[in-house]
Amino acid sequence: MEERINIASDTVIEFLEQKRYSELKELLNEMLPADIALLFEDLDKAQLVAVFRLLTKDLGADTFAYLDNDSCMKLLDAISDREIHDVFGRLFLDDAVDVIGEMPANVVTRILNNSDPETRHLINEILKYPEDSAGSIMTVEYVNFTKNMSVGEAIAKLRREGTGKETVYTCYVTENRKLIGIVDTSILLASDDSEIIENIMETNVVSVNTLEDREVVTRTFNKYGFIAVPIVDADMRLVGIVTVDDAIEVMQQENTEDISIMAVMEPIEAGYFKTSVFSHAKKRIVWLLVLMISSTVTGMLLQKYESAISVLPVLVSCIPMLMGTGGNSGTQAATMMIRGIALDEVRFSDIFRVVFKEFRISIIVSAVLSAVNFARILIMYYAGWLGEIGGVSVFIVAFVVSAALMLVVIAAKFIGCTLPLLAHKVGLDPALMASAVISTIVDAFAVVIYFNIAVYFIDIL
Amino acid sequence: MEERINIASDTVIEFLEQKRYSELKELLNEMLPADIALLFEDLDKAQLVAVFRLLTKDLGADTFAYLDNDSCMKLLDAISDREIHDVFGRLFLDDAVDVIGEMPANVVTRILNNSDPETRHLINEILKYPEDSAGSIMTVEYVNFTKNMSVGEAIAKLRREGTGKETVYTCYVTENRKLIGIVDTSILLASDDSEIIENIMETNVVSVNTLEDREVVTRTFNKYGFIAVPIVDADMRLVGIVTVDDAIEVMQQENTEDISIMAVMEPIEAGYFKTSVFSHAKKRIVWLLVLMISSTVTGMLLQKYESAISVLPVLVSCIPMLMGTGGNSGTQAATMMIRGIALDEVRFSDIFRVVFKEFRISIIVSAVLSAVNFARILIMYYAGWLGEIGGVSVFIVAFVVSAALMLVVIAAKFIGCTLPLLAHKVGLDPALMASAVISTIVDAFAVVIYFNIAVYFIDIL
Repeated sequence: MEERINIASDTVIEFLEQKRYSELKELLNEMLPADIALLFEDLDKAQLVAVFRLLTKDLGADTFAYLDNDSCMKLLDAISDREIHDVFGRLFLDDAVDVIGEMPANVVTRILNNSDPETRHLINEILKYPEDSAGSIMTVEYVNFTKNMSVGEAIAKLRREGTGKETVYTCYVTENRKLIGIVDTSILLASDDSEIIENIMETNVVSVNTLEDREVVTRTFNKYGFIAVPIVDADMRLVGIVTVDDAIEVMQQENTEDISIMAVMEPIEAGYFKTSVFSHAKKRIVWLLVLMISSTVTGMLLQKYESAISVLPVLVSCIPMLMGTGGNSGTQAATMMIRGIALDEVRFSDIFRVVFKEFRISIIVSAVLSAVNFARILIMYYAGWLGEIGGVSVFIVAFVVSAALMLVVIAAKFIGCTLPLLAHKVGLDPALMASAVISTIVDAFAVVIYFNIAVYFIDIL
Repeated sequence: MEERINIASDTVIEFLEQKRYSELKELLNEMLPADIALLFEDLDKAQLVAVFRLLTKDLGADTFAYLDNDSCMKLLDAISDREIHDVFGRLFLDDAVDVIGEMPANVVTRILNNSDPETRHLINEILKYPEDSAGSIMTVEYVNFTKNMSVGEAIAKLRREGTGKETVYTCYVTENRKLIGIVDTSILLASDDSEIIENIMETNVVSVNTLEDREVVTRTFNKYGFIAVPIVDADMRLVGIVTVDDAIEVMQQENTEDISIMAVMEPIEAGYFKTSVFSHAKKRIVWLLVLMISSTVTGMLLQKYESAISVLPVLVSCIPMLMGTGGNSGTQAATMMIRGIALDEVRFSDIFRVVFKEFRISIIVSAVLSAVNFARILIMYYAGWLGEIGGVSVFIVAFVVSAALMLVVIAAKFIGCTLPLLAHKVGLDPALMASAVISTIVDAFAVVIYFNIAVYFIDIL
């Protein structure tokens, strides 16, 4: 990645200390807002304000949209009410709401008090939507046309009004506030000035309701490849749009959240290094505790077979392999489901198709695994690597372990594919039913299956 | 999600059977290409071609860009050379390359033979770039200006040439083919006709080299929120652009791949249902086998402590808990690293910071877990739920298990955070070092730590 003009934070601090403000100002104002925001993360509060005041008002506001919460808070704390007014007057509405959503109440009040009445009203409108709803990530800054306008008039309107709008690349056609069509600016530009909007607009409009989950919005982007998606209320009235840059942010957040939850952690809000040791620990401890206690069940089941173990301790040596392979098999099926649900490829109604498919997959997989395992046990015992098997035939041990393995893998695939779908059905996050949870459940099944087969085929009880 | 005009595949088949072609044609041509493509997945070859021929040429070509490989192959097989020519003449270049990239050699030849010489040349140019490089996902259809043009002239050029271009929302300013600036169409539209391009162009250009990994492109979109990113060669000559819709596709593919690899599967190329049982099994079996064989090590270690187990079989009952909790702790740390590396938040050079941070986290987490576990053992044994502990004090057993748990969690966090960073350093996919691999390694450590502590504190050997 080429970043033509970009200065390191050390250089900035040096310039500040040497009071070479005008040089620094010139350099900074050549930089991109996202790069300046990254730079800010390494500065202390006094440096932050000093640098911020060297930026033009527009660049300062643009930079705000990219700041992490920490720098944002520091900066808001240090700048004047007038400066807050300037920043929030210039920020795109959705970016302003984004910033405000992460700030504590007193800072929010200060921002709202220093905003124009109209901006304040709009911000409050968006803040009213439930967290993670489509409404909460939209902006109300879009360009709209009426169907009777000519292309020439529309382009003139776009050129007049477009500056303050988040996107000018998709325009909306409304009638009595209802969304009746969409015009891509590319189509608009390619049409004759005398053409009427009604004739070039797309009337088969894909829109998302304000109250739907924001994931519905990202799925729409995924599916159709739009630049912006209109957000409508229950009466199909256009209330806002979500632009693709915000959708990408949401997509990555959702992916990070899913991945965290799949690894039994509550998602952290900031970056890895910015999150304190204590809050990392807090996000991780809950599920570790739950699963630790749950695994006691497996321990108690094992204890039930204590006498079998003391007669034939060699049985124990296959437990890690059975539990591990079972857990991994279940995890594979569960992961397929979790991702399938997230991308809207698999639904609860598919459950029978899924179970049948996973059953056939598990037959193939478990047959191969069992055959290899059977061979492994024969080889290792004949070579003496695993020591003696107190009086029991190697073939019987190999058979017991391999049969158990086959059943464990089949059970694991079944558990792995059904639990995420069931979780989704009852409104839980399917990502919860990933590796750790599935493994813990499969562990218990593995013990029961294994020892039942062992006790049945080997005369040890 | 609202999809205003959309018909079910059953309806389409019904219309076809009743030969109600003109009605069907009318309905289809109101639909969006992405929806038609979805519809196609449920049709057989004859139905596919019949429906395809009812679409306008433009809609037909647009639909091609959204087709899955299966329908694509069926359709290409059934349509005439002339139709292939029409489709690929109309497709955006990057979409055409996308389609071609997935087709077998004979189909590719047929497509290229039926393309215009210029299109063929451009397709071949892009096909030359390495798989997963920035060059392989770019398009060469963009609008470029010279710096001396006026805004009026530029807008006229945009309106004249924009129709066949993939995006008209970011325009590029070149001089002797070198990229010297970027003009957002929004800025262009908001400027006076008499303004000169040089004065409104952004000269601090972010671009990506053709040969860099496509993930560098998606990261650029992530960071800056662009609509398109310019792709340049080593001499900063503009050779193409990547548009945001393609970047989103790549992002989701990369995420799906990461998630698959983290669950020890090779990523499947098509959707869950479209992939056959056999190829699902093939994608899953390799790592299951590797990890199954690896877990034998843990089994052999357990067998080393066979005598300890036969003296005190109760020791075995804590193994699932130790392995499970260790595996989960390690997975958490590993997942943090894998995601951090994917989002470019964590690098190999941070390894010491990471280890120190994870060490502190593991101290907190393991202290809590050990305390709870100590209490659990005391409570359960006094209540008699876990039966007798052949002559050893409950306190000693509780101490041994809790001390082992503490060390296992600390070791697991260390293994979990270092392995993905090391894998990344040596050029492996860090996602490989996720739950299953980490758990298998941690399992072996757990056994060694546990039995060494047990043997030391309890007089059993």
